[in-house]
Amino acid sequence: MIKVGVVGGTGYTGVELLRLLALHPGVQLSVTTSRSEAGGKVADLFPNLRGYVDLEFSEPDLSVLAACDLVFFATPNGIAMGMARDLLERGVKIIDLAADFRLKDPQLWQKWYGMEHACPDILATAVYGLPEMNREAIAKAQLVANPGCYPTAVQLGYLPLLEAGCIDVSTLIADCKSGVSGAGRKASIGTLLAEASESFKAYSVPGHRHLPEIRQGLEQCAGSAIGLTFVPHLTPMIRGIHATLYARPGADAMDLQSVFETRYRREPFIDVLPAGSHPETRTVKGANHCRIAVHQAPDTDTVVVLSVIDNLVKGAAGQAIQNMNIMCGFEESAGLQYIGLIP
Amino acid sequence: MIKVGVVGGTGYTGVELLRLLALHPGVQLSVTTSRSEAGGKVADLFPNLRGYVDLEFSEPDLSVLAACDLVFFATPNGIAMGMARDLLERGVKIIDLAADFRLKDPQLWQKWYGMEHACPDILATAVYGLPEMNREAIAKAQLVANPGCYPTAVQLGYLPLLEAGCIDVSTLIADCKSGVSGAGRKASIGTLLAEASESFKAYSVPGHRHLPEIRQGLEQCAGSAIGLTFVPHLTPMIRGIHATLYARPGADAMDLQSVFETRYRREPFIDVLPAGSHPETRTVKGANHCRIAVHQAPDTDTVVVLSVIDNLVKGAAGQAIQNMNIMCGFEESAGLQYIGLIP
Amino acid sequence: MIKVGVVGGTGYTGVELLRLLALHPGVQLSVTTSRSEAGGKVADLFPNLRGYVDLEFSEPDLSVLAACDLVFFATPNGIAMGMARDLLERGVKIIDLAADFRLKDPQLWQKWYGMEHACPDILATAVYGLPEMNREAIAKAQLVANPGCYPTAVQLGYLPLLEAGCIDVSTLIADCKSGVSGAGRKASIGTLLAEASESFKAYSVPGHRHLPEIRQGLEQCAGSAIGLTFVPHLTPMIRGIHATLYARPGADAMDLQSVFETRYRREPFIDVLPAGSHPETRTVKGANHCRIAVHQAPDTDTVVVLSVIDNLVKGAAGQAIQNMNIMCGFEESAGLQYIGLIP
Amino acid sequence: MIKVGVVGGTGYTGVELLRLLALHPGVQLSVTTSRSEAGGKVADLFPNLRGYVDLEFSEPDLSVLAACDLVFFATPNGIAMGMARDLLERGVKIIDLAADFRLKDPQLWQKWYGMEHACPDILATAVYGLPEMNREAIAKAQLVANPGCYPTAVQLGYLPLLEAGCIDVSTLIADCKSGVSGAGRKASIGTLLAEASESFKAYSVPGHRHLPEIRQGLEQCAGSAIGLTFVPHLTPMIRGIHATLYARPGADAMDLQSVFETRYRREPFIDVLPAGSHPETRTVKGANHCRIAVHQAPDTDTVVVLSVIDNLVKGAAGQAIQNMNIMCGFEESAGLQYIGLIP
Repeated sequence: MIKVGVVGGTGYTGVELLRLLALHPGVQLSVTTSRSEAGGKVADLFPNLRGYVDLEFSEPDLSVLAACDLVFFATPNGIAMGMARDLLERGVKIIDLAADFRLKDPQLWQKWYGMEHACPDILATAVYGLPEMNREAIAKAQLVANPGCYPTAVQLGYLPLLEAGCIDVSTLIADCKSGVSGAGRKASIGTLLAEASESFKAYSVPGHRHLPEIRQGLEQCAGSAIGLTFVPHLTPMIRGIHATLYARPGADAMDLQSVFETRYRREPFIDVLPAGSHPETRTVKGANHCRIAVHQAPDTDTVVVLSVIDNLVKGAAGQAIQNMNIMCGFEESAGLQYIGLIP
Repeated sequence: MIKVGVVGGTGYTGVELLRLLALHPGVQLSVTTSRSEAGGKVADLFPNLRGYVDLEFSEPDLSVLAACDLVFFATPNGIAMGMARDLLERGVKIIDLAADFRLKDPQLWQKWYGMEHACPDILATAVYGLPEMNREAIAKAQLVANPGCYPTAVQLGYLPLLEAGCIDVSTLIADCKSGVSGAGRKASIGTLLAEASESFKAYSVPGHRHLPEIRQGLEQCAGSAIGLTFVPHLTPMIRGIHATLYARPGADAMDLQSVFETRYRREPFIDVLPAGSHPETRTVKGANHCRIAVHQAPDTDTVVVLSVIDNLVKGAAGQAIQNMNIMCGFEESAGLQYIGLIP
Repeated sequence: MIKVGVVGGTGYTGVELLRLLALHPGVQLSVTTSRSEAGGKVADLFPNLRGYVDLEFSEPDLSVLAACDLVFFATPNGIAMGMARDLLERGVKIIDLAADFRLKDPQLWQKWYGMEHACPDILATAVYGLPEMNREAIAKAQLVANPGCYPTAVQLGYLPLLEAGCIDVSTLIADCKSGVSGAGRKASIGTLLAEASESFKAYSVPGHRHLPEIRQGLEQCAGSAIGLTFVPHLTPMIRGIHATLYARPGADAMDLQSVFETRYRREPFIDVLPAGSHPETRTVKGANHCRIAVHQAPDTDTVVVLSVIDNLVKGAAGQAIQNMNIMCGFEESAGLQYIGLIP
Repeated sequence: MIKVGVVGGTGYTGVELLRLLALHPGVQLSVTTSRSEAGGKVADLFPNLRGYVDLEFSEPDLSVLAACDLVFFATPNGIAMGMARDLLERGVKIIDLAADFRLKDPQLWQKWYGMEHACPDILATAVYGLPEMNREAIAKAQLVANPGCYPTAVQLGYLPLLEAGCIDVSTLIADCKSGVSGAGRKASIGTLLAEASESFKAYSVPGHRHLPEIRQGLEQCAGSAIGLTFVPHLTPMIRGIHATLYARPGADAMDLQSVFETRYRREPFIDVLPAGSHPETRTVKGANHCRIAVHQAPDTDTVVVLSVIDNLVKGAAGQAIQNMNIMCGFEESAGLQYIGLIP
């Protein structure tokens, strides 16, 4: 049994962490903090947790957090980097679900996130928490940067192709569609049901913060610079990301289905569908799986990869727990045995 | 470990049973039958089950089913009553999720379901599987009739009031709203997304099959005849039932909040919300809970009970497993520890 | 051609007014005000209006508004009552879509709306703008209080029964369901798609501001005090209200279908469906119609009326234009010839 | 006033045609046929039409149809080509909303639609009804093939770029998202609300019938062969298509915004949004507009065009009426003055 804390438990990644941690066999959830909700019962804010989580939100307090074995940050960008040093020095493990430790280059971070990085030295020690790429490093890490939702879906879809060297890396196109929960639990007009339902739109075509994160990961896989066009879209549903990934085939023809099946054979949460399949996001609703299919388009031979995740699970809280399991020596799938909710 | 079979695994209650049984710690899922899908892999039809259910659908075969300890029927009405005798005689326990054994009066059954009852003698031995009413009888039963979805939400909402005798039983009104999955997984125009989304309607006001079932249960609680108006509505969502229940207060004033809290104090799946609450169906999405709040309307003192369930879980497959747990001596909540999916 | 102004054009009733006014054959839309958006183009905020409305939002300015023949207030409660006197004195007609002039009793208004009424003398002259009840008074009015959305659906459903005297008026129950646009276009967590979609809930059971408005109207029809329980619910769709209205039958049996058909025979926007029907809200999506069906429940003889409107059209902007047509001598259906959008 | 008939009025393009024709100032709707619904009232099937369409469905009858000036076919593929000759010979104009006359090459048609073309000679005379490409030919045509929904959105998005010669035509990628009404009004499991809501998926990646239609149109614009990857997706909403179109820039840099604005300056239904915009499908819900924005992606300079239509209006019935207006000498926007429904 390890003691776990959650800093910032009032957003969607926060409540999803609480849902999963409450039933995790190796975890004692000791503290959940929220400045705005301090003193209130967690289960009053999220009644689905009634009977499962009996905590109150508390003000973030270093000594309380330091008594945990591991602390998750489900906070806005910029918070974790301010508290990390103190916790790390006291031996606490950290998993940050925000972006503070995702980009290796602090200049790039500052460019995209609009603030100076508070601890570039710590940043250098952080491990990017995509288990399918970095499992061994995660196992040894004290600080893990949990990937973004789009970056998870996109990197898992391109990774086998890049490693196998069977696509042209200079003309990648990632056309991604996300449910509205990706915008977070905050009052805003744009994601009201009356605005976002029964409609579909692209956004941030001129530039989205997940672009440098995706590029960093893909370039690590490819071992070279890549060219990537990334267009996110808002789709009228709560959960789910569907990445449609395009690439022009490389010089050598390869059996793409087998490239994927081989690469992911031992991955507990990656499911390569049979040739000809079209994964639906609902097959992973509430589950930590990523389902992937690979096609070649008629006439043009363009490689088309379809990759789906639940943005709040494999794209956030579930992946964070997968990382915790790896860091703490649990079975990798402990507390993550959920089957997608159909219908 | 008991061996379990599912007859008719291709509908929504079927796939929900499979989702829950696949992870139940005391169950080995041995057979799933479907005439139409026989020979196909279960996980091809329901890809959320990939990696969890490795069975193929098979033709229903008595000898295979008879090798099970317990068989669920997730079939259309009229199937279970044709197969029950053979299985019961061989010592198999049965839980029927259809309506074949819900109404005690075979004449009434015939009137509402349009066919003669195939085994009135067996019907007499069936136990109505609402654990909060009939737990002891369920524990001893070999054949359990799993309640309908609306009847579960309505009976759980009225039960404490009827037992306490604090409402006028002659003018009950149950205004109920169901998600579209209640209509089942079958090709039809009326429940297409393009028809049922962005719209709301009542249906079956002249008479719905759940009316006699609800009345039978409420009259058992009340110990007398009741007057009930039942109006079901279709609401544009997948899962969830919200029952809004009206009753005129009885002669003696009572603390209704405490009537509910006392009655359900020890129930593992009934959650009485604090006074003044309004339960949301999403708090039980994917979970076996029923959440209930009780109010008295301003000016008129009309008693208003709000009762929510997931129609496929507490309203069908989850309750069936709860009944199985009781019949087979498992912990009542075994395999049912799911927290509602928010958001 | 009359000159029309809209005060507060940035909410959902505002944009709906603009949609309808832009194509009204007798109207020149001269000014739209918004403090928060002043200087911005209307069509930038609402791109559906591109090519149809070429105005900018302006600060509310009495002299500009006074140059209009008629001014709509699509503002929060409490604004119209502060500006009405100046406009009325200059001969401008006013239709208030908020609640300022709906309740005849200023004390009652203060109780429910939490502020003192600014002009009780003007309130006394205001006409409640439900054309089916008050057409002649509307035609002569200078100030019309446009009804609330729930009150429109409920009153139109009960009105024929109350006028005919064929129900018990002491035990009315109005179980109402609204789409989320009824909550308005304002940043809030509760009506985010990720919160309000795939869920259903009641709200304000202890008391909703539309209760006194409905009661006032029904008592006018009934000519006596009534007993009314009103429970509103939030349903996961954008537009539409479905009122399910219950009443116990009165002493004398009547042909209810014919009561409704007779009462509404000449109403351009009330459609009494054939006996046995269940109206769907989508049949009035974007249209000014109210569709109604009347039933008697099996066994109990409870009268059940089903009444549907689009909350933004017949429940707000469409009815306001219907009132304008009556006040200004246009054909009553001018600019309101829209057919509900199916699918 | 022209007399108009609709063959096959029971699908979604059919009811949308009826909605628009019922209020068209120059049209008398004389006959609507349906084999399956013959004898039933149109407004019983589609209650939104109550009060606007008083016809009954009739069996298709050549003499009745021949009395029309113009007949729309809103039928499944393969029907119109069987009836066209008789009607054309009697001087009737035809607009086919199905695919029978869209592909110029009868061999290609047979390959994709699985049946031999019944009248290749007539096919040769048919005009492809995309007014923005073929307005003059449409004006003279007796038979117009109304474009498919995806082809409309995609062609309108690429057309200015192809005509201006400013993109590489060999690597086009059209990633398209459609609401569920595109699948038609027919009983099927895949488009049930409980299946298609809260989920997102690609489909027909190995080949979709709209691919040859789009390619034929784009090659006409480009004046050369093109390379096109087309991936359609199903998005959980009723109406709307969003096409995200990718192209690598050509050798000569051009001001893309001005390429679009210039090309579409005089088009009544094409709205080029300001630079930097992201069109939402809801801005055209129920309206005949196509809204378009053009971007260049950061770093890669990939051209990204965003093009939205209502699949049932500009993508089907609205465009058909626009064609009718052109063919019959009406104002091109007659009967099509609808503003998209927001919210």
